[in-house]
Amino acid sequence: MNAPLNPQLVHRPMPDAMLEALRERFGERCSTALALREQHGRDESPFDVPPPDAVVFAESSEDVVFVVRLAHEHRVPVIPYGAGTSLEGHLLAVQGGVSLDVSRMNRILQVQAEDLTVTVQPGVTRNQLNNELRHQGLFFPIDPGADASIGGMAATRASGTNAVRYGTMRENVLGLQVVTPQGELIRSGSRARKSSAGYDLTRLFVGSEGTLGVITEVTLRLFPLPEAVSAAVCSFETVDAAVQTTIAIIQMGVPIARCELLDTHAVRAVNRHDKLQLRESPMLLMEFHGSEAGVAEQAQTVQEIARDFGGTDFAWATTPEERTRLWTARHHAYLSGLQMKPGCRAVTTDTCVPISRLAESINESVREVEASGLPYFIVGHVGDGNFHMAYLIDPALPAERETAERLSAQMVARALRLEGTCSGEHGIGLHKQGFLIDEAGEGAVAQMRALKRAMDPHNIMNPGKVFAL
Amino acid sequence: MNAPLNPQLVHRPMPDAMLEALRERFGERCSTALALREQHGRDESPFDVPPPDAVVFAESSEDVVFVVRLAHEHRVPVIPYGAGTSLEGHLLAVQGGVSLDVSRMNRILQVQAEDLTVTVQPGVTRNQLNNELRHQGLFFPIDPGADASIGGMAATRASGTNAVRYGTMRENVLGLQVVTPQGELIRSGSRARKSSAGYDLTRLFVGSEGTLGVITEVTLRLFPLPEAVSAAVCSFETVDAAVQTTIAIIQMGVPIARCELLDTHAVRAVNRHDKLQLRESPMLLMEFHGSEAGVAEQAQTVQEIARDFGGTDFAWATTPEERTRLWTARHHAYLSGLQMKPGCRAVTTDTCVPISRLAESINESVREVEASGLPYFIVGHVGDGNFHMAYLIDPALPAERETAERLSAQMVARALRLEGTCSGEHGIGLHKQGFLIDEAGEGAVAQMRALKRAMDPHNIMNPGKVFAL
Repeated sequence: MNAPLNPQLVHRPMPDAMLEALRERFGERCSTALALREQHGRDESPFDVPPPDAVVFAESSEDVVFVVRLAHEHRVPVIPYGAGTSLEGHLLAVQGGVSLDVSRMNRILQVQAEDLTVTVQPGVTRNQLNNELRHQGLFFPIDPGADASIGGMAATRASGTNAVRYGTMRENVLGLQVVTPQGELIRSGSRARKSSAGYDLTRLFVGSEGTLGVITEVTLRLFPLPEAVSAAVCSFETVDAAVQTTIAIIQMGVPIARCELLDTHAVRAVNRHDKLQLRESPMLLMEFHGSEAGVAEQAQTVQEIARDFGGTDFAWATTPEERTRLWTARHHAYLSGLQMKPGCRAVTTDTCVPISRLAESINESVREVEASGLPYFIVGHVGDGNFHMAYLIDPALPAERETAERLSAQMVARALRLEGTCSGEHGIGLHKQGFLIDEAGEGAVAQMRALKRAMDPHNIMNPGKVFAL
Repeated sequence: MNAPLNPQLVHRPMPDAMLEALRERFGERCSTALALREQHGRDESPFDVPPPDAVVFAESSEDVVFVVRLAHEHRVPVIPYGAGTSLEGHLLAVQGGVSLDVSRMNRILQVQAEDLTVTVQPGVTRNQLNNELRHQGLFFPIDPGADASIGGMAATRASGTNAVRYGTMRENVLGLQVVTPQGELIRSGSRARKSSAGYDLTRLFVGSEGTLGVITEVTLRLFPLPEAVSAAVCSFETVDAAVQTTIAIIQMGVPIARCELLDTHAVRAVNRHDKLQLRESPMLLMEFHGSEAGVAEQAQTVQEIARDFGGTDFAWATTPEERTRLWTARHHAYLSGLQMKPGCRAVTTDTCVPISRLAESINESVREVEASGLPYFIVGHVGDGNFHMAYLIDPALPAERETAERLSAQMVARALRLEGTCSGEHGIGLHKQGFLIDEAGEGAVAQMRALKRAMDPHNIMNPGKVFAL
């Protein structure tokens, strides 16, 4: 499937001199093998690859500086690559260039438990980080489902299941080390919890999708592992009842840690994939963090709210094993869902609206997809007003993709009317550039373009993403 | 006292044509009266005014657009003015121009209780907002002490006493309407809780100190008024014991809402000013928010920790009246402290460090100021690692100012060694530009300058602040 490319994007060939310089420094860590290039020109989006011209495996900030300086000199694109789990075509080499793979920069540099901070290299994945932190009684809450790299999560302003209580990468990145498009190493932020010192470069890089520089270190906030954790599932007759329950929970100010919706299709998919026996109806999967007493209090409040909306089969998972089983199933939901239609690819949506508008946002979207006949499933970080509908399409049938794109566009237009956003956590990439203009307006996107031109005048950093220049 | 001005800053006279155009549109809302101009060229910093050439009172976004377009055309500086409570010389008209007073843009446009959001004009003050919200069971937690305007708080990335639990303006501004330096009205963000849609313009404007545009609307996150609130004071033999208590509270993960330090001098000052009988020794003033049971649990944990560090005279204030009396005294601490040395002005510091470094940061600073003989007092948002030392100086004695500036520089250098920041919440303004370079490095400040030049090529928005161009 071809990505909706800007027709002005043309391949910018890599001069031989640059390839030679890369080979001289990196040896086998620089490759032009097609299979590797294709793997690096792809993400979880439904688009076919335009592969990069070369893949370089960086092992240090100095490696990154070397590559970016060379690319700057030769005006060749650089596309930072972490775990390859982005969803909007972020990694596609639409103008060729170097895929700069930072997955080997995977050292946890400094855990400062006494300050609840950690500094990591960008290739550290969130599971790796949490495995390391667990024995110190700490955790990093941002959990987008996939075992994404921390650098990639910062670059896409990721969030996921815990954001309702702990915030997103926006709130949890304290500082960065970045290689600028000129190949200069700079730092932003510090280990202090807050700062008013100058422009917030940290939050400008967070969410910039690799278009303003290469993230080479990330300093994060950590949290103490809660004294008590308890997960619960609750089934509902309708998606609407589950959503109304969520709205009431949030409006009551219950400090719920996770509040996830799975529709009937998603529950069926995870039952099949993970061999579970969950009731195949719309479901909320929730988690509570706090003291023993606090968790019990939250859970009781939520159970009462759910009952008001016809919630049934309220079931607890208090042992770590039960909880892990449920959340693993939730994390498999995307892959499980794809298996419902063999050979399919998914067009996924990512709108996020104010919580009071969530029912309208979901209900109308369900009505439209049901009318279209396209298979789909819904998973949602509904505590934030964010949900994903995945339209399962046959890549050989252009009409199915057109239908999915039409439904997606209708959903975004509705989310914007409801004062929400086209993307809660996946970013813009190639796929949502038109939606960004609809949402932010030409004037605000013009400001973004001005920032990009000022920081990357030769447009070498992940060109063609977020907006057309 | 003269501000440490960049010698390249020269007055940019306002052409008669511009003044005439302003008078024609604004009538009496445009003034060149010296007293009014001087009042608008001053803030809470110790610097003498360079007054603006004119003051314009805007009453709408359209008024702001009109002024900025005219200023753009004539290349004349525009300095947004809210409540005049900034502390680092932000409002001084170092190149002349128009002080654009938005204090009459003080309407609360839309409270959406069901989404915990509100949209306000920039001149709304935090007390005005909370008075309006209270009867709806909601509050806006950011509390810098002064009754600052919301627009000004966004522009300086303010925080204050509640930030330890609720975050700062960085975390609590969801969206903005801004007039760009070209006079175009743009929006950033939305009412959704999170978004990955493009560059984070919201957080670029938050903390930009009026140098990138004029904020004309702010959409904020709100919180439900807690079911239970309880405040407590606890006295300690030494500042160090109070700080060690704070460090332990934060490291235990107690969700304390406020954790404020007052040193002996500050307690004595508020006793005198507010007619209180607090024990005149270092004190923590704390507040707990939650359910009845949750607050009791937090308070018990904290009381046990405090006892370990020799805390005494633990006293509760559970009625709203008692709490208000204590917090009012805290909010008066700055003015109360100034009255300890009649006719003095204060040089204030604002470092913020990782919590484990706080004791070193404070203890060394106390040692140095005691050695200098300069009167001082300390108030601190110590739960965040942030504290303010106010050096009380006689404006007629340059040697006292030099001593204060030397002590301040030593404190900042130490905070940076301890991986902290020169400014937790007051911003850079005129006063801390050298410190910003020390902290961020020339490379990062060069990126900030590039952003400023891209967005404001004629340097009309609050020129001379944050950094020299």
